Amino acid sequence: NENFDLKEHPHSRLNILTGDWILVSPHRTKRPWQGKVEAAQADERPEYDPNCYLCPGNKRADGSENPEYKASYVFTNDYSSLLLNTPDGGLNDDELLVANSQRGICRVISFSPRHDLTLPQMKTEDIRKVVDVWQTEYQDLATYPWIKHIQIFENKGDIMGCSNPHPHGQIWAQNSIPVEVAKETQQQKEYFEQKGRSLLGDYLQLELKRGERIIFENEHFVVLVPFWAVWPYETMIVSKRHITSLLYFTDDEKTALADAIKRLTVRYDNMFETSFPYSSGMHQAPVNMGDHPYWHWHMHFYPPLLRSATVKKFMVGYEMLANPQRDITAEFAAEKLRNLSEVHYKSAR
Amino acid sequence: NENFDLKEHPHSRLNILTGDWILVSPHRTKRPWQGKVEAAQADERPEYDPNCYLCPGNKRADGSENPEYKASYVFTNDYSSLLLNTPDGGLNDDELLVANSQRGICRVISFSPRHDLTLPQMKTEDIRKVVDVWQTEYQDLATYPWIKHIQIFENKGDIMGCSNPHPHGQIWAQNSIPVEVAKETQQQKEYFEQKGRSLLGDYLQLELKRGERIIFENEHFVVLVPFWAVWPYETMIVSKRHITSLLYFTDDEKTALADAIKRLTVRYDNMFETSFPYSSGMHQAPVNMGDHPYWHWHMHFYPPLLRSATVKKFMVGYEMLANPQRDITAEFAAEKLRNLSEVHYKSAR
Ligand SMILES: O=P(O)(O)O[C@H]1O[C@H](CO)[C@@H](O)[C@H](O)[C@H]1O
Ligand SMILES: O=P(O)(O)O[C@H]1O[C@H](CO)[C@@H](O)[C@H](O)[C@H]1O
Repeated sequence: NENFDLKEHPHSRLNILTGDWILVSPHRTKRPWQGKVEAAQADERPEYDPNCYLCPGNKRADGSENPEYKASYVFTNDYSSLLLNTPDGGLNDDELLVANSQRGICRVISFSPRHDLTLPQMKTEDIRKVVDVWQTEYQDLATYPWIKHIQIFENKGDIMGCSNPHPHGQIWAQNSIPVEVAKETQQQKEYFEQKGRSLLGDYLQLELKRGERIIFENEHFVVLVPFWAVWPYETMIVSKRHITSLLYFTDDEKTALADAIKRLTVRYDNMFETSFPYSSGMHQAPVNMGDHPYWHWHMHFYPPLLRSATVKKFMVGYEMLANPQRDITAEFAAEKLRNLSEVHYKSAR
Repeated sequence: NENFDLKEHPHSRLNILTGDWILVSPHRTKRPWQGKVEAAQADERPEYDPNCYLCPGNKRADGSENPEYKASYVFTNDYSSLLLNTPDGGLNDDELLVANSQRGICRVISFSPRHDLTLPQMKTEDIRKVVDVWQTEYQDLATYPWIKHIQIFENKGDIMGCSNPHPHGQIWAQNSIPVEVAKETQQQKEYFEQKGRSLLGDYLQLELKRGERIIFENEHFVVLVPFWAVWPYETMIVSKRHITSLLYFTDDEKTALADAIKRLTVRYDNMFETSFPYSSGMHQAPVNMGDHPYWHWHMHFYPPLLRSATVKKFMVGYEMLANPQRDITAEFAAEKLRNLSEVHYKSAR
């Protein structure tokens, strides 16, 4: 039907990476908001906070002391969700009560000795050092032969459950493949077996031709709003080269990734002139499980804000029980992000 | 391994209704919380609010006026996410950009003329009237032959995106099967085809024998914390009789459902002596798509609070990118809920 218009009419979109669908209601932005308004983020922090367990030289919960580190600092999470010494075991009662022991390692990465910074406020060369640490940690964790998956991620902002504003991320490595990663493995594998090409590689080509969901690109990465984005300003960084994991990033690629992260997160902060909250993380091939030629490295950003610095999108009743739903289109979000400055609003003042 | 203990060791559990796994970290409750604390809910409201679009006699956004209703009142959402008149259509670009038009109807149900009540504060006989409306609406919406799924749900509390504290729920009916429902259809169908019995029926039998996840039961319903619960105090109401949808509820069953909802939500409110937020909703057979003998009616409650009236569980980085994760076990949650009073803390004062 030629009257049907993605910009106007409610529709579903397929997430080719997971096989799931999302509901888009483009007409719904007119809805007035009478609901919950978040407190504005307290934004002024000292360079050093004596009470912060991530600042150099401070004490941690386990009694140890952080070194006087100058760039990044990695340690095992004092409240790890996964533990190294969990005994093997499980439960299977008539296939109705099914459980398996989980073994893993949770690490914390402080991105900077400076308590008052965030990724968008750091220099690209310092973000580059974080990329190096991600690569080293991935490599190191993969030396445990029982580790199958390594999740690198960041929760930014208290609205995203981040309990310490000191810039930091996490790594959870474990002996099994998490649900979201299993779905992406399946979808990429099927496509690769059918077409002999990377699913995301082909998708990138199409998006670059279309242009409408591209935010920017550099030599090695494309930053875009995926066609099937769920969160209002959800984005994805995709490597132009078909690489299965960050283990294979060249020196140039690592610098280009730092550049992409810097420019994307500065745009985010400029959106509502606030420290823009999000959860971000990389998806890449499992480890110690043979070859995964179909895997194509990428990084997701899931930011909750919708209307302003204080009004977020709620993924609640319908979304939890039925289907993710969004009110603005991916194309609208991409255009907004594309038009934002790459000079941080704080440094521009 | 006999050392492995679900009460102590990190493990994954299978959600037999969706086929997904969740990560449980029982040891992690010791973690101190330094993160976001929600504002306490403002709890005193007038019986009638002249500015509320749900109160009897008031004006709505579309200019119409609510009647002076005495029990429940149903109307089409003034900001519907799905619309009746969406033209058919779609998009399929190389199976990479895939979209389909979505048609539907969104309704709002005011549960009571009283602005100051919530379900746990209403009389069981008045909740029973809400159950009647759910049944009538389900029946009515199913008369549109193109409607395939009817999602009945409630968002309670501003932390769950509810923009008006007047007690109300929603119904979103649409021309396709949402993701979560498709998963539950698949799982129940497979089990039924293999064993010739209802998946949830067998599960109920096992849970009733075990007892450790049961909160309470009445003549027709069991209220329990599912083995695979994701949210800290997530629960499920399951009908003892294997019925595919609320269309077939008898008079007795409708009264028993009202009783189950009343007693569960009172326990919830008593947990932290606050109006306990949640999103809840029914899952049941699709409509206008033939028979679904494997479907077994049930109702999910997804409440976000973890530690207190003001500290919730954040489903963020790891959860969004990898796998849902929880810190207390389903058994611990069930025991807490089981031991709570069924007299509302406000009426007990
Ligand atoms: O329809 P409401 O109450 O305005 O909106 C609420 O419920 C909807 C359905 O779960 C969500 O899409 C919205 O994000 C939420 O704020
Ligand atoms: O590990 P943190 O920062 O204490 O905790 C935060 O991130 C975790 C991983 O996404 C979540 O499980 C927690 O709910 C969240 O508060």
